[in-house]
Amino acid sequence: MTQPSEFTPACPLPLTDSPQILLAHGGGGRLMHQLLERLVFPAFRNPLLESRHDGAIFDIGGVRLAFTTDGYVVHPLRFPGGDIGTLAVNGTVNDLAMCGARPRHLSASFILEEGLPLETFQAILASMRRSAEAAGVEIVTGDTKVVDRGKGDGLFVTTAGIGVLEHRLAIAPDRVRPGDAVLLSGDLGRHGVAIMAVREGLAFETPVESDCAPLWEPVAALLAAGLEIHCLRDLTRGGLSSALVEIAGSAKVSLRIQEAAVPVSEAVQGACELLGFDPLYVANEGRFVCFLPAAQAPHALEVLRAYPVSKESTAIGEVRETEPGQVTLTSRIGATRIVDMLSGEQLPRIC
Amino acid sequence: MTQPSEFTPACPLPLTDSPQILLAHGGGGRLMHQLLERLVFPAFRNPLLESRHDGAIFDIGGVRLAFTTDGYVVHPLRFPGGDIGTLAVNGTVNDLAMCGARPRHLSASFILEEGLPLETFQAILASMRRSAEAAGVEIVTGDTKVVDRGKGDGLFVTTAGIGVLEHRLAIAPDRVRPGDAVLLSGDLGRHGVAIMAVREGLAFETPVESDCAPLWEPVAALLAAGLEIHCLRDLTRGGLSSALVEIAGSAKVSLRIQEAAVPVSEAVQGACELLGFDPLYVANEGRFVCFLPAAQAPHALEVLRAYPVSKESTAIGEVRETEPGQVTLTSRIGATRIVDMLSGEQLPRIC
Repeated sequence: MTQPSEFTPACPLPLTDSPQILLAHGGGGRLMHQLLERLVFPAFRNPLLESRHDGAIFDIGGVRLAFTTDGYVVHPLRFPGGDIGTLAVNGTVNDLAMCGARPRHLSASFILEEGLPLETFQAILASMRRSAEAAGVEIVTGDTKVVDRGKGDGLFVTTAGIGVLEHRLAIAPDRVRPGDAVLLSGDLGRHGVAIMAVREGLAFETPVESDCAPLWEPVAALLAAGLEIHCLRDLTRGGLSSALVEIAGSAKVSLRIQEAAVPVSEAVQGACELLGFDPLYVANEGRFVCFLPAAQAPHALEVLRAYPVSKESTAIGEVRETEPGQVTLTSRIGATRIVDMLSGEQLPRIC
Repeated sequence: MTQPSEFTPACPLPLTDSPQILLAHGGGGRLMHQLLERLVFPAFRNPLLESRHDGAIFDIGGVRLAFTTDGYVVHPLRFPGGDIGTLAVNGTVNDLAMCGARPRHLSASFILEEGLPLETFQAILASMRRSAEAAGVEIVTGDTKVVDRGKGDGLFVTTAGIGVLEHRLAIAPDRVRPGDAVLLSGDLGRHGVAIMAVREGLAFETPVESDCAPLWEPVAALLAAGLEIHCLRDLTRGGLSSALVEIAGSAKVSLRIQEAAVPVSEAVQGACELLGFDPLYVANEGRFVCFLPAAQAPHALEVLRAYPVSKESTAIGEVRETEPGQVTLTSRIGATRIVDMLSGEQLPRIC
């Protein structure tokens, strides 16, 4: 029998003036960052968690494994280009890929709300299966819980994943070095705009579909090509900007990004203007950045462009030693602005 | 870009007359069993999932790993003997232990409801940390999502876990053999009664605390003693009865249980009578059954009784070849009844 837990806080209460969880705490921006830095990391203090990577990397019996998890609460459950099932599989597959790990086994845990149509659940399961097959992973263990009506929202999915590192590279945010190039695997903003459009009932001339897709193939090809990858990061909640600011902070370097080099489709650009969003902050589910020595960038781009999911890969900037932690964006006309993390809430429940 | 998913069901719609999820689909009994058998397993069809074990066991690079996940939606978040954090850690630790695997690394994924007091979240984190330390595991990766007010219930936690099998035994439900003894690690019903009591505002003369506790230590000792363990199963949702019925079905054997041998404390017995529950169906979070050849039972009991968590271990029955799938309970006066899975909902959101 265990003792009743004492509920003594692990550290003094921090954060905003709010003593409560805000939607923005889930947004992938500054508030979420603070929540993790001040509440979660101190509570679980251990070096793996503190590597601020997309997953934990460790050795078991001489095998290097990556382990990651993500909860999915996207609303609505289905959207152009995917559904909560495709997200839940690809999101975890991609977190493993960003660790440089071959995704192998996934778990799936469901929190169902009383009253959810069985047909909806079945359809999401089928969608997860198709996504798992496409990504070359197996869903091997799972769980279902049911909560009473009004205490959930249809269906939440949490996946965890195990991958194997088949190389000896150390791929992590703090490995980024001055002189690295910043590569981006494709155009930005499709996922966030697709969700927003369906949520707001907007119809665009050119419909925008989520970019939700597995990213292991192009990553595997980069590794197979023997390129010296320093860091990989997929651009989910908080978008490109939040990812870059986090990496610049971890690596204590500055990043200079050329705005004109960042691909954004006309449809996404138009939708963002309409909705008042900056595509640099909008969530993606099939895009990543890659940091590696600038001299290897042309080879890496050639490798990436051979895969449909990363065929629009391009170099968008460089890593410098000065002004550690700073990310600057140079506009088409040469003006420079400092890029910050997303602050406040932009698109709640985007994934 | 992926195609929009087609939402074509993987198999015809089944189950009860209800086309919707019912609370009972989460109860650990017959309806949950049907949901898994007819919806989830067919969708993800693979041998690991179909082993109906507490986790998946597979080999990576010559290392045998176990992988498991569980979502926790217990209400209320805190109860005598634990909280959602202790459950989330011990539950996953125990699922790994039931695979015969040494629990190593845990992930933790949180779905927070807007408005949750930060202090509550912080307290749960601290509780998880203490539980992880006590169980000898590390929480190495995680995720937080926030849902809008009224779309969650304070806090849901999903943990996944990786463990290592350091032996070559095959421990699984379908390994149970005629001639095995059925050992039970302690008294039944504490967890369910503790939750129910706090939920209903009942005060018992002797307060009942949840039995929530990590079970790896006694399991490790059984393995270290070289005992030929056939199956281990912790007795969570659905209680002892549902676990036994599931195992009897998997192994195609019958189980004969002596009712008088099953320990139930006076306080739990009294509470169950008051609430109209049968302790055999009430959830536990620190109890398990062990199947092994009857000749090894005395040695196994000696090993188990050396640990506080399993000091009341006892032999409760035997495995026979006749009437495959049947579980019978022999009462103190010699009457025999057939035990079935929990049907309908007994205690929603017990874990």
